[in-house]
This record gives sequence, structure tokens and C-alpha cells, in this order.
Amino acid sequence: MAVRAAVAGASGYAGGELLRLLIGHPDVEIGALTGHSNAGQHLGALQPHLLPLADRVLEPTTADVLSGHDVVFLALPHGQSAAVAEQLGPDVLVIDMGADFRLQNSADWETFYGSEHAGTWPYGLPELPGARAALGGTKRIAVPGCYPTAVSLALAPAYAAGLVEDEAVIVAATGTSGAGKALKPHLLGSEVMGSMSPYGVGGGHRHTPEMIQNLSAAAGRRVSVSFTPTLAPMSRGILATCSAKAAPGVTAEAVRAAYEKAYADEPFVHLLPEGQWPATASVYGSNAVQLQIAYDASAGRVIVISAIDNLTKGTAGGAVQSMNIALGLDEATGLSSIGVAP
Amino acid sequence: MAVRAAVAGASGYAGGELLRLLIGHPDVEIGALTGHSNAGQHLGALQPHLLPLADRVLEPTTADVLSGHDVVFLALPHGQSAAVAEQLGPDVLVIDMGADFRLQNSADWETFYGSEHAGTWPYGLPELPGARAALGGTKRIAVPGCYPTAVSLALAPAYAAGLVEDEAVIVAATGTSGAGKALKPHLLGSEVMGSMSPYGVGGGHRHTPEMIQNLSAAAGRRVSVSFTPTLAPMSRGILATCSAKAAPGVTAEAVRAAYEKAYADEPFVHLLPEGQWPATASVYGSNAVQLQIAYDASAGRVIVISAIDNLTKGTAGGAVQSMNIALGLDEATGLSSIGVAP
Amino acid sequence: MAVRAAVAGASGYAGGELLRLLIGHPDVEIGALTGHSNAGQHLGALQPHLLPLADRVLEPTTADVLSGHDVVFLALPHGQSAAVAEQLGPDVLVIDMGADFRLQNSADWETFYGSEHAGTWPYGLPELPGARAALGGTKRIAVPGCYPTAVSLALAPAYAAGLVEDEAVIVAATGTSGAGKALKPHLLGSEVMGSMSPYGVGGGHRHTPEMIQNLSAAAGRRVSVSFTPTLAPMSRGILATCSAKAAPGVTAEAVRAAYEKAYADEPFVHLLPEGQWPATASVYGSNAVQLQIAYDASAGRVIVISAIDNLTKGTAGGAVQSMNIALGLDEATGLSSIGVAP
Amino acid sequence: MAVRAAVAGASGYAGGELLRLLIGHPDVEIGALTGHSNAGQHLGALQPHLLPLADRVLEPTTADVLSGHDVVFLALPHGQSAAVAEQLGPDVLVIDMGADFRLQNSADWETFYGSEHAGTWPYGLPELPGARAALGGTKRIAVPGCYPTAVSLALAPAYAAGLVEDEAVIVAATGTSGAGKALKPHLLGSEVMGSMSPYGVGGGHRHTPEMIQNLSAAAGRRVSVSFTPTLAPMSRGILATCSAKAAPGVTAEAVRAAYEKAYADEPFVHLLPEGQWPATASVYGSNAVQLQIAYDASAGRVIVISAIDNLTKGTAGGAVQSMNIALGLDEATGLSSIGVAP
Repeated sequence: MAVRAAVAGASGYAGGELLRLLIGHPDVEIGALTGHSNAGQHLGALQPHLLPLADRVLEPTTADVLSGHDVVFLALPHGQSAAVAEQLGPDVLVIDMGADFRLQNSADWETFYGSEHAGTWPYGLPELPGARAALGGTKRIAVPGCYPTAVSLALAPAYAAGLVEDEAVIVAATGTSGAGKALKPHLLGSEVMGSMSPYGVGGGHRHTPEMIQNLSAAAGRRVSVSFTPTLAPMSRGILATCSAKAAPGVTAEAVRAAYEKAYADEPFVHLLPEGQWPATASVYGSNAVQLQIAYDASAGRVIVISAIDNLTKGTAGGAVQSMNIALGLDEATGLSSIGVAP
Repeated sequence: MAVRAAVAGASGYAGGELLRLLIGHPDVEIGALTGHSNAGQHLGALQPHLLPLADRVLEPTTADVLSGHDVVFLALPHGQSAAVAEQLGPDVLVIDMGADFRLQNSADWETFYGSEHAGTWPYGLPELPGARAALGGTKRIAVPGCYPTAVSLALAPAYAAGLVEDEAVIVAATGTSGAGKALKPHLLGSEVMGSMSPYGVGGGHRHTPEMIQNLSAAAGRRVSVSFTPTLAPMSRGILATCSAKAAPGVTAEAVRAAYEKAYADEPFVHLLPEGQWPATASVYGSNAVQLQIAYDASAGRVIVISAIDNLTKGTAGGAVQSMNIALGLDEATGLSSIGVAP
Repeated sequence: MAVRAAVAGASGYAGGELLRLLIGHPDVEIGALTGHSNAGQHLGALQPHLLPLADRVLEPTTADVLSGHDVVFLALPHGQSAAVAEQLGPDVLVIDMGADFRLQNSADWETFYGSEHAGTWPYGLPELPGARAALGGTKRIAVPGCYPTAVSLALAPAYAAGLVEDEAVIVAATGTSGAGKALKPHLLGSEVMGSMSPYGVGGGHRHTPEMIQNLSAAAGRRVSVSFTPTLAPMSRGILATCSAKAAPGVTAEAVRAAYEKAYADEPFVHLLPEGQWPATASVYGSNAVQLQIAYDASAGRVIVISAIDNLTKGTAGGAVQSMNIALGLDEATGLSSIGVAP
Repeated sequence: MAVRAAVAGASGYAGGELLRLLIGHPDVEIGALTGHSNAGQHLGALQPHLLPLADRVLEPTTADVLSGHDVVFLALPHGQSAAVAEQLGPDVLVIDMGADFRLQNSADWETFYGSEHAGTWPYGLPELPGARAALGGTKRIAVPGCYPTAVSLALAPAYAAGLVEDEAVIVAATGTSGAGKALKPHLLGSEVMGSMSPYGVGGGHRHTPEMIQNLSAAAGRRVSVSFTPTLAPMSRGILATCSAKAAPGVTAEAVRAAYEKAYADEPFVHLLPEGQWPATASVYGSNAVQLQIAYDASAGRVIVISAIDNLTKGTAGGAVQSMNIALGLDEATGLSSIGVAP
């Protein structure tokens, strides 16, 4: 029997990508679609690539509209999910694609988001140690941020195996869809094409505490993270270059062995053969993660590079993967590990 | 029981896109993959986005390797398909993704390709009048060129309904994957990014006689085509702007009605609602065709604009769609009408 | 002695490009810079590429601020130039980069802009027959639209020499800067990268009557224009593909000879050697126009392709070139015919 | 009297950019232009943006052709400059845009380039301590690599002022022109558009020892560098994200003060106002360097981000700037600090 799913925030990039995946999901029937300023409009005018849903009309985001579904996905601005979730009742699977329930530390939330912390839900990154078990049967899922997905999968095995020291340095490039559909001058095509630029430098990006949380859990001790995000002239994709000092005595072979072991059975995380490097194009539109590692003996650092599609594995694909686990479906249902390239 | 399919020319863009679709096709089992200069290499090094086939090794393109399959796709340079096809026997479904068997007129072939004409096979554009019937049960299919796909679907209904005069003017923009993986200076990223440029201007492009053939068939008389292709700074997509003088007495309503009727039952051709225009991003990675029409009363012309993905509907998706028809499968099996956007 | 120039609308793309050129103009001293919603801000925050002017502060666009200059450039929204120009007095050279004074036919203005027509000023496209003479010593200049610049220079010689018939068909691709800095969803980087799409199809684009005006003047009779603009994934550049039926008896040689003669002495219009085609990258940031022609004997059409930088020759460079003529300076002062490529 | 300059390697991207600058240099007359496989061709076919030189014909790269000039620029493959330079005599100013004479340590050369070290010439990065003085009157100049230009200017002040610890971590994104015009599959437009990917990870990039050399000289002690270059979907530009642990007691104010002092009098290096971040678009086609700094108190790191145009300040502009110094001209002659944006 089909799972009935509603999507709150269906007009944005995260909502659109989620619908792209749900249309092809064999066990899901798409129910209510809601928007805020776009309520009343046809989806075809807002998401012209979603042809099978072109005639669907967006409804307002209310508990009434969202009730009566088995699963409700929330793709809402920060801080709005808790109020909606409360009204949906404990038996509905609520999957929050925003930040509200990702952080365990309320002080971090308050520092980075400036409001009261709504709580912490099971974390939808099943490839992290212990995460998959926590998702089985749950009725509440916090989908990770796109950068934390790329970075945590890149560095967690090194921290879990004790191969690197406490201070991680991360520089990541994202496609512009990561910034959403907001009408801001620096997101205009004329500004972004042909240009690379950083933002949120110096610890200010809201995804930093989420990375610290994940890597510290893997390490079993507090890990510090220096994170610099950059905006790249492409629509989709994250390339994360992550490094940390190698622990004493670590060898390239030990690093490789740890990653091979960590991801041997994962359907979506692929450690590439030696000599081949990740490219965001290779995971375009797919739920796959491409990883490669290097040990720089001269600088004494372990470098791990990951590529994901920020909208798929980084947002909507991760949400569907976690939903599958929570519902007891095969984890890969409705998801592809094949990129659309070139 | 699964259909066993071999792909000759698996290292190029057409072959890669075909494999992307065949991996997800529920009735197909992927058999031999062949290459020329790349024989012996792992597919993972050549097509890093095709993760499920990464460990497959390319074999040389010989009849021996290709035999023993139910379907053989040929993604070979012009002029090489006939020799291979002859050796495969009449019971194998051979689908040529090259130009060799598209043209009916041998003189056209000789003018544009400079060699002896190999023959004419059933034409794999089922949305053209009569084409679908000719594909049912056939053992030989000529997949249309990417530009002729976009242009013929745009203008055939107008010619079939007698709405426009004989001289069509077409300007189309293509993504660079349409030019293949050949190492030519003008295809380097540094040259194409941020630039638009034309090529094959003045009737010289090899796809012109194929357009004339299709539009003349629809019109029931000889149609002339002025075709100017341009190279756009994107990997995929064709946007074709096609126009012709309106026949006397034609109205905007009559034009719209003809297109609505022509494509009412087509699973992949979508006439957009009035006021919405095609964009190549909306059909990225999909087998869909987006169409819109305008009647310019001042200039007296009917303008039809189509958007396709040159690698999907324009090449590999068209091939799979035709294969489905030839094998008696549902025509849309393994194909999507949803674009990967933004 | 330096010419003192003010720029109204210095925060937009046209104003920014104008300032880029004026900084390097040896006879110009940059005076007041004005903005509307940005008044009071530093130019460095709005135009970070204009380092020498980073500390300049935008003033409000008032006659008071703009008075006391030898030249005033107006880069304002449509319909706002007349009121400002009136207050500046007849001795100031006023150069309008908007549309207000381009059209000779008031009915055209009212049809396409929906307001009262402000008048007609000497037209700043000196390469058109008679235009250069009208610019010498003038105190009012209407800078042409970007598309009409590319299209008129492409087709005027053919019409002037009687080589083509009355109906021109034009398809042009523009970079997104042609749409300005307005915050519209379809101009977001995520939407435009990797996509081609049309707009204003069917005669609706406001530049159409300007093209008709120029080509009709060249032809000495009414020429009709079918114009389809498309948005390309690049910041700058226009590639215009222009064609018309060849007049009876016309030869390829006659066409080439007409263009060689028309542009033999022009410093910025370059007919490329046969076999070489224009590319927008080649004129990036330059005031040059690249042209190439083809005669398609089979379709019976003359095809002319032009490439310009929409912000330079198409807007700000054309404005400076016309200013030079009006002031009696060397026409090429402060302008380059060299593109920034690759 | 004009300086006569020859360019060996005029058909590549570095040679083309150099010619773009030299055409506009008021004191330079362009003499012989040479190529290797392109000798005999018109420059217009190879560098279509250099309209004023379109009719020049490339000559073979021989001492005979290059003799009789005041300045000879060498834009040749690695290892070929020494043989040419020897034949030109000690009175000709020879400016090597390749790597041959950049490194002081012969062992580094041999490790990274695998051939015998040709020697060390004065280093053409005048903004480094002591470098400007060494360039005055010299007859031999080694132009820095593009990455070392961006990275050394970003970090040298911090090392010179003792503000950071020994281990620098650098991740940089480059436009594809940095890889030259070589016909390699991964440089095709279809591959690079929409994709970010790393290369030379783990210490393998040949620019690493040059960075170590420059930063160690600034620090007065051996600095280690972990350098990861990435290829971005744009033609031009380098964005370098550089960081190191802050030395004990360092404050954000102290860091800012050190950079303000280091670059106060530099015509091309611009420390941006606080809150504004570099973007490669802002320095497109210019010789400017944009810098911004951050102190991440939580991670304890100083982060410096620089943006340059790899072909201008990173190659040809740096060469012209150094030539100006060597010849006693004003250092900024023929160079612009204004980017071509958007």
C-alpha cells in the first residue's frame, strides 16, 4: 500500500528536488503540496521540470492541509518547523529538511540562529556510526545540512579510527542552488557566472556547529573545525576539501584501509579507486557520494575530498533515504547512484 | 525475461547516456560494452558517473563480441555501422545511433557525408506521422539526429496541417556534448564558457537534409530549410527556434489547436500552457520535449520553440523509446519525463 | 581640458560598464555619480570591480547634483530621462542610455512602452548611413538598444545595397546582464546556468520597432522583422543570427563586396575572413563588432551573424563612441577593439 | 623611444593575454611572434580577440627570429627556456613566463620537474619583501606561477609579521585557462561546465615548492604547505583560501594592521573593507589582487582569501609589471586595476 506524502514548501529548490525523487518512488503517493507566497499557483509555473505534477495547485501551509498523510516533509525557513510538527501528531512521520532539529546543543542553536532551540531529532545521515539504528521506526527525522553531509562523510572515518588530530580545516565549494531561490543580488546569474567567491568566513557559517557535532561524536572528543564555504559558478554540487594533521605513525595504507572498511557496505558512499578524484558532475542528480583520500607526507596531513549533489544526497535524497529506513523499506528505494553527466 | 543489450561505443557521450538509461531499464540486462581506442579500460575511468558499471571492462568492437545479444546499440563514428550491422544477423535488433541509415535520399548522403550510402532504416522518431507503426517489430532502427528531433517535432504539425509556407528558418543552440568527446580546441572549456558562436552556417550542417526529409514528408511537398546551429555555454540541451510564414488566413487559435491535437496522446511531447516558454534546464536528463508556439501577426510568421536534452530525447532516450516499441514493451519504460533542475 | 561627466544610474550594469570605460578615457574627468535606492552607499560595495572609484559615494538623481557637468549620461529606467534632461539645459551634452528617445514613430513608442513619447534624439550608432554626421556637435544622443546595435549593423548593408527581400528573421542570444540587475527569479544563477530559453517571442520585444526603423531606413522601404530573443548562460555578449531571402540574382560575391565596402573604414566593425565565425568571447569587454556572412544557395537566404558585447558596444561603449564624435574627439578614444579572452 | 618586444609562444593563453596587454602598452612595440606547431598561421585564426594583430603571421621559435628585440617574453613549455635564453645574449631583457627559473633549490626542481635545474632568476612578484629592488635594471626575470602569486600575496604579510604558525593549509580554485590550451579530455567544456574537481592533491602540484619558498622567506624559517588545487567551471580566475594557526596572543586587529601596512602603497593589491569578500569576477582581466582576512577565534586560525585573474596578475600582467620595473618605467604602465564585470 502506498505511503501518502505531503510536502510543505514545494515551490523551493529543496521541495522541487524532493518531488522529483518522490514521483519516481514506487511506494509513495504524493499528497498535498503547500507553499507560502505561492499558494494558489500551479506547480507547473514554479517547477517547470516536474511535468507529471504540472497541474497540481499549491495549498497554504497549514496543519489542516498537511494532516491525513503518512509522511510530511517540511522544507520551510528556519524556525518554522516546530510549530507545524506539533500539530501533526506523534504517529505521522515528520521529516524536517530545515535546520531546526539538527543540533544537540541548545547554546549552539541560539548562537547561530538567535532563537529558542526547538529540540533534537534523530539525525538523517545513516552512514554515520549509530545513525541508521536510530532512524529505524522513528517518527521524527532531522535531515542534515548539505555541507555537513559532505564533510561528515569525508572525515568521520578518520576521526573514528583515530587517524587525525583535533583540528579540521575545510574549504568547500557549492553550487548556487544551495543558497535557495531567494532574490538576492549576489545570486543573480550575471554575478555568479564566471566567478568564485567566499562567504561566511571565519566560523560564521551556520553549518559549522553541525560539523563539529558530527566529527566530535566520531572522534569521541571535541574536534575544532575551520570551515570556509565558497560559491561556485554551477547550479548544483558540493566539493569539500577536508584535512587534518595525521596522528603520529599514521600511514597512507592505514588511512585507505579505514575508509574501505567504513564504507564497504554503504550503497551510496563510494571510495574511488586510487588515482581517480571526485567531481561534482559525476554525482549530478544522484544520491551518491564520491570520496578520495590522500596522505601528504611532506605537510603531514590527511586530505579527504568528497563530492555530492547538494540537493540530492545533501538534502532531498538524504531525506528519502532516511524515510525509507524509518518506514522499513529498502534504503535505496527511489534513489539512484548514477549521475547525470556530462 | 530480460533483454540482453550490447553497446558499441560505450566510452562516448551518447554511449554513456544510453548506459545511464539502460541501467535503470527494468527489462534490460547490460551485456558487452565495447570501445575502440579505449578497449581494455575500466568504464569507471571513462564514465565516472556510471557507478554501478565502474568495474566493467571495455572490449574491442567486433562482431564476435557483439553477438549473442538481443539488442545491439551502435554509437560509432559515421560510416562504420553498416559493416558491423551486416555481421549481426537479421534477428538481432540493431539500433544505430549514428547517421548512416537516417536518410532516404542517397544523393543527399553522398553530398553531405562523401561516401556511399548504406541504406535506410525505420526512423526512430515515433511522434512523427506513421513512424510509430513502422517501428513495431522492426529489427533495424535509425535513431534521428539531435537537431532533427528538436526541429521536426517543432514544425511537423504546422506542415501537416497546412498552416505554414514552404520555407522554414531555424536557429538552434546546442550544449557542447552535442559535439562529442573529440579533442578539438574550440570545444575546450576555456573557449566555450561565456561564449556563443555559430558553425556550419549556410546550409552546411549534416542535419539539414534530415530536417528537410521530415518536414517535407509532413507537408506532402518539398520544404526548404535554412538552418543555423550555434554552440552555447552549457553541457546539454537544444533550444530550437523554428519559424515559417503563416499560410493565408491562419489564426493563432488554429495553430494552437493543431499542436494540441498532434501531441494530445504523446507521453513525451508537452505543449506548454500559454505564456510559459521552454527552457533546456526543464528537460535536463529527461526524454521530454517542451514546445511553445507564437503567431506573430506583424511579421506574419508562426514561431515554434522546442527544448530537448540532446543526449536523452535527442539521442539515447530516443533510442530506448524506439527499442521499447520494437520489442513490444510500454513505450515509456525506463524513461523519465522529469528534468533534473535547477 | 578635461570633460567633466556625470553618470545617473551608476549602480546598475550599464552605469558600471560606462564607468569602467570612463576611468580609462584620457579626456574625461568623472564627476557626480547618482543612484536611486542606493544613494548614500559607496560605489565599492555596489561595483567592486571599479577599484579606483571604490570610495565614491552615490548621490540622489537630481538636476542639482547633475548640473555643472559638460556631459551627463542617463542610465535610468524607461520613461525617466525626459524629465531629467529638460532640467539640464541645452548646452549640456545629454546621453540617454535608455529607450526614451530612440524611436521616431510615437505610435510605436506608445504601443510598446504604454506612455507618452518624449521625442527623438540623434541616434548613437555612427556606423549607420548618415548617423555619424548627425552626431557631430549634437547636445542630445539616444544610445541604441543592445539588440538593435547587433542586428542593424548585421543587416543594414544588405538592405542598403538591395541584396535582400523585405522580411528579416532574427534570432539572438544574449548574456544575462542584458536583463539588468533586477531581482527576478528567472535571472537567478541557479536558473540560468546550463539553460537556454526564449522570451518576448512573437513580436513582443521592445527592441523590435527600433530594428524595423533602422532596417527600413537602410532599405528605403518598410522592412518587417521577426525577432526572437533568447537568454544564454553567460554574463555578457549578444550573438545575432539574421537572415532574409536573397533578392533575385544576388551572389555570394556581391554580398561580401557590399559588406567589405560598408565597413572598410569603420574602426570597430570587423568583417571576419571567410571561414571564421564570430564568437561573443572574442569581443568580451570590447567595443568591437564581429561579422560574418553566408549565402545559402539551397534555401535562397543571406545569413549574417554578428557578435557584440551587449554592455560595451551594445550600451556603454556605443555611448562613449557617440560622445567622442559629439565632442569632436577621436572616435575611438578610450575604447578598445580587443576582447578579453579566453 | 619604443621598447621592441618579441613573444615566443604567442598562440597559447599566456601569450595571448600578454599580447592583449602589450597592444595597449604605450611604450612597447610588438615585434616577432613565434609559435611551434602553429608557425606560419595568422594570429587572427588562433587569437580571434586580438583584432589589431589579426594579420600577423607566427614565425618559428628560433634565436634568429627572436634576436634584435629589447625584450623577449618566453611562454614556452617547461624546460625549454634556458636554451633559448642563452642564445639571446646578456643585454636583452628575457622574461620567462614558465617555471624554469623560479625555484632556488635545485633539488626541488629535480623532484617536481624531473630534469636538470637551469638556474634561478630574479623573481617577478614585486610586492614580496625585497623583490622590487631585485627587479630594477635586471636582464632576467622569472615570472611567478599563478597559484604562488595568489597564495604568497595572501600569506606573506602574516608570516613576515610573525602572526601565524608554520603550517599553512591552502585550497584554491582556478579557471580552466590555468591548464592551458592542451587538448585533454578533462578540459573539454562538456566536462568542466557545472563541475568542480580537485587535482594534484597531497603535495603533488608543482607550484607547492614555490609557495614554500616564498612563505619561508617571509617567515625567516621553513614553512610547510598543504596545497589542494581545484578546477572550477569558469575560464579565468583564482580564488585562494589560505589559513594557518594564529600565533599565541594574536588578535584580529593585529592581523588587519599588518596587512594594511604591507600593502598600503601597492598599486595592485587591495585589502577590501571589512565585510566585503573577494570575487574573481571583480578582477577579471585586471592586474588587481583582492584580499580579505578573517580571524576565527573558535578554530584559532587566521584565514586570508585572495582573488586574482590567473592570466593577468597571475601570468601576463605580472610579467608586464616586472618588465616595467626592470626598464625603469612606471610600474603600472599598460596595466589596469579595473575588472571587467559582471
